[in-house]
Amino acid sequence: MSASLNKILLSENEIPTHWYNIQADMPNPTLPPLHPGTKQPVGPDDLAPLFPMGLILQEVSQEQFVEIPDEVRDIYKIWRPTPLYRARRLEKFLDTPAKIYYKYEGVSPSGSHKTNTAVAQAYYSKQEGVKKITTETGAGQWGTALSIACQMFGIECDVYMVRISYDQKPYRRAMINAFGANVYPSPSDRTQAGRNILASDPDTPGSLGIAISEAIECAVQDEHTKYALGSVLNHVLMHQTIIGEECLIQLEKAGDFPDVVIAPLGGGSNFAGISFPFLRHKFKNGSNIRCVAVEPASCPKLTQGEFRYDFGDSAGYTPLLPMYTLGHNFRPAAIHAGGLRYHGASVLCSQLLKDGLIEAVALQQLECFEAGITFARTEGIVAAPEANHGIAQAIREALVAKEEGKSKTILFNLCGHGHLDMQAYQDYFDGKLQDHYLTKEELTSGLKELEGFPSV
Amino acid sequence: MSASLNKILLSENEIPTHWYNIQADMPNPTLPPLHPGTKQPVGPDDLAPLFPMGLILQEVSQEQFVEIPDEVRDIYKIWRPTPLYRARRLEKFLDTPAKIYYKYEGVSPSGSHKTNTAVAQAYYSKQEGVKKITTETGAGQWGTALSIACQMFGIECDVYMVRISYDQKPYRRAMINAFGANVYPSPSDRTQAGRNILASDPDTPGSLGIAISEAIECAVQDEHTKYALGSVLNHVLMHQTIIGEECLIQLEKAGDFPDVVIAPLGGGSNFAGISFPFLRHKFKNGSNIRCVAVEPASCPKLTQGEFRYDFGDSAGYTPLLPMYTLGHNFRPAAIHAGGLRYHGASVLCSQLLKDGLIEAVALQQLECFEAGITFARTEGIVAAPEANHGIAQAIREALVAKEEGKSKTILFNLCGHGHLDMQAYQDYFDGKLQDHYLTKEELTSGLKELEGFPSV
Repeated sequence: MSASLNKILLSENEIPTHWYNIQADMPNPTLPPLHPGTKQPVGPDDLAPLFPMGLILQEVSQEQFVEIPDEVRDIYKIWRPTPLYRARRLEKFLDTPAKIYYKYEGVSPSGSHKTNTAVAQAYYSKQEGVKKITTETGAGQWGTALSIACQMFGIECDVYMVRISYDQKPYRRAMINAFGANVYPSPSDRTQAGRNILASDPDTPGSLGIAISEAIECAVQDEHTKYALGSVLNHVLMHQTIIGEECLIQLEKAGDFPDVVIAPLGGGSNFAGISFPFLRHKFKNGSNIRCVAVEPASCPKLTQGEFRYDFGDSAGYTPLLPMYTLGHNFRPAAIHAGGLRYHGASVLCSQLLKDGLIEAVALQQLECFEAGITFARTEGIVAAPEANHGIAQAIREALVAKEEGKSKTILFNLCGHGHLDMQAYQDYFDGKLQDHYLTKEELTSGLKELEGFPSV
Repeated sequence: MSASLNKILLSENEIPTHWYNIQADMPNPTLPPLHPGTKQPVGPDDLAPLFPMGLILQEVSQEQFVEIPDEVRDIYKIWRPTPLYRARRLEKFLDTPAKIYYKYEGVSPSGSHKTNTAVAQAYYSKQEGVKKITTETGAGQWGTALSIACQMFGIECDVYMVRISYDQKPYRRAMINAFGANVYPSPSDRTQAGRNILASDPDTPGSLGIAISEAIECAVQDEHTKYALGSVLNHVLMHQTIIGEECLIQLEKAGDFPDVVIAPLGGGSNFAGISFPFLRHKFKNGSNIRCVAVEPASCPKLTQGEFRYDFGDSAGYTPLLPMYTLGHNFRPAAIHAGGLRYHGASVLCSQLLKDGLIEAVALQQLECFEAGITFARTEGIVAAPEANHGIAQAIREALVAKEEGKSKTILFNLCGHGHLDMQAYQDYFDGKLQDHYLTKEELTSGLKELEGFPSV
């Protein structure tokens, strides 16, 4: 019967019991993060003021599978396992011999995959007596996810939201409030970092860099307060592998296996979540599966950046990380896929790309919105602008299959719905959006600032 | 195992094959709709300029079960069967011995139950060669649902959206555009009705009555264009019974049966959808199941209106319908649950209430928002303001059970998510919302206008 189904569902009892830690299987290990002052590898103690030890140990773990605590799985059961869809109407519309599957993470409380790691991070914080977690949010998806996760564990949550998003995205802010977190426009007068900025520029729109500074400042000043990140770090990527692990079970039920796995890449957790479990099969069985990360052409760190040590944040607070980067001061154009506007790629994804184990492609935003509209009208889901990048690449692959007259199985991660991003769609319909072609100057200016940084 | 599950899921193959037509089982039949001119019962031919014959025949059908066409079931498979949740976290928070279940219709493409009838209506229109469907939308849920339904069948769709909603709900408008419909602010210059209003009041915010006039005017002028309604009519209520039919299967799997079934009531399709299949059991087996319709205290037609003939619309275009009403010119306060601001109740629900087979309760909006926040923080879903009315009543019932120290099984319809209504939540957080207590004058002025209308 499953051959004709639209959705492959699993029961709650089939939620995977372990996250997959790709560090155990990578042919080349990642280079260590370095302390920006001493240029020496960073140890667990260096991170202890910011993160709970449970997460720091996961960050450096070499264990292949890490057991998901029962309390985390219990909360996952609210929305997991998420459905795997066969995109039959999209296939028909494209008239392609390819089979297209998508994993839908938009059913989570926050409407995106971010909830998977938010719940895990809140759990390990609770275990260590943390009373409050601080974080920053730009597009708002991460702030939303951490809010509901903290709510579930009775932890207070302070979200520093970039002021321009705070003003322009009242729906996001309301959602964070609904889930019980405190949300402050950043810069705020609650931190020294915020007050300094406000003193010199009272009308600043804010930036993710400033918001990070505020969240970190609050965390380090109170021993019961920790800080949380929604992407980039190894433990965050590992928590997301629940996505790909479920896909493996679901595709087995469908009697299928992908030739290509696709996901958008901002920091890397979305891409890692769906692709790492499939890469395990590639490592083990030498399968030819292709894993394709899709980045916006306006922020092309994977396809046009350099693999080198750089800061993870624009303010330069984090350790130096070995990664594909455009430079921590690179300022991407204001495309609406806010979640993909990050200057670097996670250390794990960067190493895999360097080793030729994954691929990357950069797409312009008009193609992505067009793909999103096609998807909405055939499959009935209006996806987040970030997610449209995955849809667009899946359509590209399906059209190649059509041209070649070959069947092929495509899997992509539909990482979130677009209900809180409808202004971007309206701007697209109103002709206000355009593609952006970076000049050589734009591409290289951020990298020039990295001269003198440790080499890889 | 099911005893510990959060979600009771069905496979696509378990989607019910028939809608349930309660007309076949009601102890007292409904009174006929009357032609406003002749005061004689309206026949199928009177409705033919507006609706396809397939739907008109369903409107008067006495068949107990009506088969769902395969093409409709195929589209239902995109999001149906919808999950039935056991609200374990809410139960724990309330510390109640009651078991609370909710059916979640927010997973549909439009984010509400409205899609169930939209798809059916588009199908029967397509069967009869209809090229375009016109409709009105206020809150926007119905316009969204009809857009995606028409898109699936290749029918053009024109949505007349009340101007103030068009201006204040850009996200809704963008969603309707994304699904491929044309959306016009009403009054528009596309119809005589619209032009007349604009000539006398260019800055009018519009009204549902005006938007209905525009949609009807377009439908009657073109033989290939029909008009569609999202609630009130018998066939619309019947299409929604798919909700309750699925619940029956799901609760059987859970080994449970409700003592009380709850849903908000605007026109009646949400309430009918979940409760009518349970009423069938009441009719047959004389079970004591209670079905409770929840209306907003600012528009209390069931609890404070009169059962009598009235127009279905404020402009007086429709046949006279025997129903509980506050008068077709009743103007409810601008509470944010736009979908519940309707002056009357469907003929079927009205007759059932008159016969004492269902109950009704009116709730103030602050209690409903508070209930919605509690629900979001425990169950992880931010519900539509309309849906919060069902949540609030479920909480009331659960607290009564706690007080009485008795277990009880509660089922309510969570008819839609609130992602496109977050401004209402922000207004609530900002203290801008208040309860509204109707004066006797407000309650009776609309009814006074009905003097001279045919009596029931």
